[in-house]
Amino acid sequence: MTDAAVRPKKPATNKRTPAGGAPTAAHSAAEAHEARIDVDTVTDLLLGTWGDVRLEARELIKDPAFWRIEGQPMAEHRERTLGQLRLLVENNGSRRAFPKEYGGLENSGGNLAGFMDLVLADPSLQIKSGVQWGLFGSAIYQLGTKAHHDRWLRDVIELDLPGAFAMTETGHGSDVAAIGTTATYDPETEEFVIHTPFRGAWKDYLGNAALHGKAATVFAQLITGGVNYGVHCFFVPLRDDDGAFLPGIGGEDDGVKGGLNGIDNGRLHFDHVRIPRFNLLNRYGDVAADGSYSSEISSPGRRFFTMLGALVQGRVSLDGAATTGTALALYIALTYAGQRRQFDSGSGSDEVVLLDYGKHQRRLLPLLAQNYAQFFANDELLRKFDAVFSGRNDTAEEREDLETLAAALKPLSTWNALDTIQECREACGGSGFLAENRLVGLHQDLDVYVTFEGDNNVLLQLVGKRLLADFAKQFKGADAAKLASFAARQTAGKVFHGAGLRQFGQAVADFGSTARSVELGLRADQQHDLLAGRVQQMVEDIAGRLRAASKASPADAAAIFNANQAELIEAARAHAELLQWEAFTDGLTAVEDDGTLQVLTWLRDLFGLSLIEKHLAWHLIHGRLSTQRAASVSKYIDRLCLRLRPHAQDLVDGYGFAPEHVRAPIASGAEQARQDEARAYFAALAASDDAPVSEKSLKKK
Amino acid sequence: MTDAAVRPKKPATNKRTPAGGAPTAAHSAAEAHEARIDVDTVTDLLLGTWGDVRLEARELIKDPAFWRIEGQPMAEHRERTLGQLRLLVENNGSRRAFPKEYGGLENSGGNLAGFMDLVLADPSLQIKSGVQWGLFGSAIYQLGTKAHHDRWLRDVIELDLPGAFAMTETGHGSDVAAIGTTATYDPETEEFVIHTPFRGAWKDYLGNAALHGKAATVFAQLITGGVNYGVHCFFVPLRDDDGAFLPGIGGEDDGVKGGLNGIDNGRLHFDHVRIPRFNLLNRYGDVAADGSYSSEISSPGRRFFTMLGALVQGRVSLDGAATTGTALALYIALTYAGQRRQFDSGSGSDEVVLLDYGKHQRRLLPLLAQNYAQFFANDELLRKFDAVFSGRNDTAEEREDLETLAAALKPLSTWNALDTIQECREACGGSGFLAENRLVGLHQDLDVYVTFEGDNNVLLQLVGKRLLADFAKQFKGADAAKLASFAARQTAGKVFHGAGLRQFGQAVADFGSTARSVELGLRADQQHDLLAGRVQQMVEDIAGRLRAASKASPADAAAIFNANQAELIEAARAHAELLQWEAFTDGLTAVEDDGTLQVLTWLRDLFGLSLIEKHLAWHLIHGRLSTQRAASVSKYIDRLCLRLRPHAQDLVDGYGFAPEHVRAPIASGAEQARQDEARAYFAALAASDDAPVSEKSLKKK
Repeated sequence: MTDAAVRPKKPATNKRTPAGGAPTAAHSAAEAHEARIDVDTVTDLLLGTWGDVRLEARELIKDPAFWRIEGQPMAEHRERTLGQLRLLVENNGSRRAFPKEYGGLENSGGNLAGFMDLVLADPSLQIKSGVQWGLFGSAIYQLGTKAHHDRWLRDVIELDLPGAFAMTETGHGSDVAAIGTTATYDPETEEFVIHTPFRGAWKDYLGNAALHGKAATVFAQLITGGVNYGVHCFFVPLRDDDGAFLPGIGGEDDGVKGGLNGIDNGRLHFDHVRIPRFNLLNRYGDVAADGSYSSEISSPGRRFFTMLGALVQGRVSLDGAATTGTALALYIALTYAGQRRQFDSGSGSDEVVLLDYGKHQRRLLPLLAQNYAQFFANDELLRKFDAVFSGRNDTAEEREDLETLAAALKPLSTWNALDTIQECREACGGSGFLAENRLVGLHQDLDVYVTFEGDNNVLLQLVGKRLLADFAKQFKGADAAKLASFAARQTAGKVFHGAGLRQFGQAVADFGSTARSVELGLRADQQHDLLAGRVQQMVEDIAGRLRAASKASPADAAAIFNANQAELIEAARAHAELLQWEAFTDGLTAVEDDGTLQVLTWLRDLFGLSLIEKHLAWHLIHGRLSTQRAASVSKYIDRLCLRLRPHAQDLVDGYGFAPEHVRAPIASGAEQARQDEARAYFAALAASDDAPVSEKSLKKK
Repeated sequence: MTDAAVRPKKPATNKRTPAGGAPTAAHSAAEAHEARIDVDTVTDLLLGTWGDVRLEARELIKDPAFWRIEGQPMAEHRERTLGQLRLLVENNGSRRAFPKEYGGLENSGGNLAGFMDLVLADPSLQIKSGVQWGLFGSAIYQLGTKAHHDRWLRDVIELDLPGAFAMTETGHGSDVAAIGTTATYDPETEEFVIHTPFRGAWKDYLGNAALHGKAATVFAQLITGGVNYGVHCFFVPLRDDDGAFLPGIGGEDDGVKGGLNGIDNGRLHFDHVRIPRFNLLNRYGDVAADGSYSSEISSPGRRFFTMLGALVQGRVSLDGAATTGTALALYIALTYAGQRRQFDSGSGSDEVVLLDYGKHQRRLLPLLAQNYAQFFANDELLRKFDAVFSGRNDTAEEREDLETLAAALKPLSTWNALDTIQECREACGGSGFLAENRLVGLHQDLDVYVTFEGDNNVLLQLVGKRLLADFAKQFKGADAAKLASFAARQTAGKVFHGAGLRQFGQAVADFGSTARSVELGLRADQQHDLLAGRVQQMVEDIAGRLRAASKASPADAAAIFNANQAELIEAARAHAELLQWEAFTDGLTAVEDDGTLQVLTWLRDLFGLSLIEKHLAWHLIHGRLSTQRAASVSKYIDRLCLRLRPHAQDLVDGYGFAPEHVRAPIASGAEQARQDEARAYFAALAASDDAPVSEKSLKKK
């Protein structure tokens, strides 16, 4: 059982300093006699644009009814999660994304902001509500038209119509365009016939499919008049009021998964199931009674991507949920690291607090910096999402940018989540392996975030292709001489800063607080140059190599692309890292408090330099850093870690979690109580006459 | 449910090649028209010195009674695992380590070899038998004397006496010397009084403690005559025949864990529990009836480490179990990657097999190479262990070497296990997240391997200190002039190859099969020079910086050490990587078949170059590689991946797993069957008149 209420939200920081000990760094901001952050300011900053909605959601999930019960058997967990969704409905948690006329609140950005933080209660709750309202409901809303909204949206919002989002098949996940399920129009009866012709075409991994779904939004190849018009979405009733499958429909339970076992994932298959023509969600493509097809978007490819793009919110919210889940892990591990002791210091008096170890700082603090960057980047993503989906700034170009941004950020934040949670788990040793301390559960639940809603590598490849396309635009219409001169400059290895790559080169303000980094020539400007220069050069290099493919046979062209695939993905990752760094840096402009700005600037520097260190070989090979300068990067990171160490607790307190969000006993006072008790015992023993002398001390005599 | 029997062990390799498709690399060794491995030879090689015992163990666990049931509730899983231990006893699985007079088989190396492979059935089975026989039984055997063996060993072997190994406390895991539990001798009654004076001193995370343990080997501070003689081990009965705690003993269940939930981990506390003097396991230290203490080892520190060292087998077997578990994950992911298709090739005809993607090769094949290296390194470790524990070569020096080797290899193999299993899980997408495909369960169960039996970072720090000590020996008795001249050479950055660091510089044979790497100057010799040179330089650099600490105050010395801690751990890791590389290379000398030698040499090169790529910045900064040469490392890895791709299935078949060991449906034929069915469907459709035409093809007309 957790004892969530033990740790007060903001203990006086000077209480954290132990009585004895020979710390190698200041333990707390108070001890450090330096600039310190204003925790409330940082909380506001991290909560971002829709902080009010997030606080509302966090307040709601203080109710233990929303908390994950560790080790709960799958069947019970699934029912519990369904019940939690009903509680959400009662508390308006299902309404934010939808139009007011159906009971909605019309707050696109706020919807995702509030939704993300459900991860603190139970990731199964977050993802099952994502299935119901973010995918199933969203498909009806975004891909259907008013008649569909009128018929279904209210029931979706109220959870009277729980549904599955039946896009993925066993045989096709990333390549949605190639799914095998067909929807063949029959003009005789004005019906579509939904059919899964082979096992690989079964819909798979669908939340709400195994038990609770009464209907599904089914993606299928639309065939009418002997022509396949590509993937469209159809509303298909699944189960009768008793929960039995309707005729022609069957399914299987996906069974136990690596995590998220509160969700009833399953498979569905369809044997010539007939649905009315009305059930085609026809916003982007329609079939008339006579079977003739029409669409406002004539290009089949563009139409397909427009439909998929309408569902981008899944990726946006996963980016945020992964960021929040990572923050929770860091809160737990860093709080524990500030209280737990192990091994005496070698200098005598007391055991060393974990976070005073150089290695412990090195393993956790760069991850903290990275997580802060993710908060700022996610808020930018949310704002872009809200601008598009509120209609305020809904252009094809903005949509494309939004999709690229989501495809860039979601992979990094979800991978970072797993890496960080695992490092936090290990940093807590055996207690980190106990379910009650939450780290293992977080890892298990967030594991699939890296491959669902777009496999991370596939998403980054999309981003990479976009980078290549943007790069190619620079040379549109350029003559051979210009290209040759460009190529010559590249061969010379000259850095190409300039026009046409503005997306890399946002203006960066420097905040004058980086005196230490200035001495090493790695202040904000230089960090940006290195990070941006790397993206640029990688894209240029790949583009140069791919140019050969344009004249090659299809097979050879595919082989050339394939030979560059891993590096293209790496370039996209570099681009996403740059975006995170820029978001962090831009976020600092809002900080007015000097101490806060100082500490956060160190943290941003730690993020930037950690990225540079990670890719140090690249910067050396490409002559961006001298070996001497490169060698200093790691040393400077060490120094930043030591400098940030006293602020670690303040920085995780800045996440603004309440005890009901944390719930891990080791970060809720249990460890500190044990340390205090042990120290009191030894102090009393030493003061008594009963203390045994050590054999060693005898031998010295 | 798994369909373990579907996939034949060795399908004819040419069957793996699809009918259509435009692969970017040969799919199979047969297609490649190149050298290919002899799978049986490789299996023998990987099974190593005690291959017979491993095959025996693998045969035994073909019985489904030993298999993990995914999603089984904790209580049932615990009982099932206990039952599996009884089955092991019936099948001689508990006897190998122990003397014949108690029913044992006296086969130290074989014992660990057979034990390791239990991980294929269920890691809970492996670890619970490790608790019973490798820790609890081993403590009695290694730390006790004949009277203890006579009294308890037979019951331990037969599982009539299930026990816990009560070393770790909630407050002290890594720092065993500082545990709080006391064993105070009372000469009046000739008893020891076992006591846990505060919450942090409770024994924690102990397998068999929550339910099944009737006794425990309890580590406690031995106090007699007012002197604390340090940590010793005591046999303490825990429960009566009804399973109730004996007077003064209490406990708690650790509850649900991140994995290994077949083991009943728990906590124990002792309130002045009295045990007879006899129960001190007195091989290394004894207390006479009058309370006087005696030991053959006069140094308290050396005595402590000797006792701990007697229990090194845990680390040795974890290294092997992690290696085998990793192999299973690679088998699953690479088999799936050779059958699963996604996205058409861009050149038309068919969808691309995952393993033909450049990125997919890059993400999996270096991990395969690493795992091969681990097999060879583990066999060396096992042989060293057997030599010491069989008594054939049991010297203090050999024991120290064995402990250092185990402390170096266990961290790498257990971390590699988690990284590799996770990469495999992601490479299998959604199906990788299903428990039935085993990857998530493997990750969950093996997670704690990185922090138990010695936290990985703490172990590596031990290795690092040993490296520093060995380095210092070179200069023992050296005068100031010699040291100065050495320091001068270091400042000049000159590579120091030479005497005194023989442990780095084993002779390396080159096998003449590395024509490709020769052209790049990165054949075996160069790989070794780079890897060994890095260890050497890092140790020298750290030693140089620590020299200042010898004259500093204790607090300053601690601070100086702390500032170098992360790098010392990194140096130890580099040392362990070198050991793995050398083991792989030495292992190749046993290969007679040309094709096998060729392919395995490529694989060894891939391992070596991947290590060099990982630390490329270091090699550049230290002038070991030119930027040009460094840039070629990644390209050469790409080429090796492409070259090894056709051999991937052979290489994982080389692990010698039977279908009953694999059990994951996606690697047992289900995926191939789905692909075949889908292709047959589309072929039949194309041959019929019913195939719809695509909208795109209409637009082209």
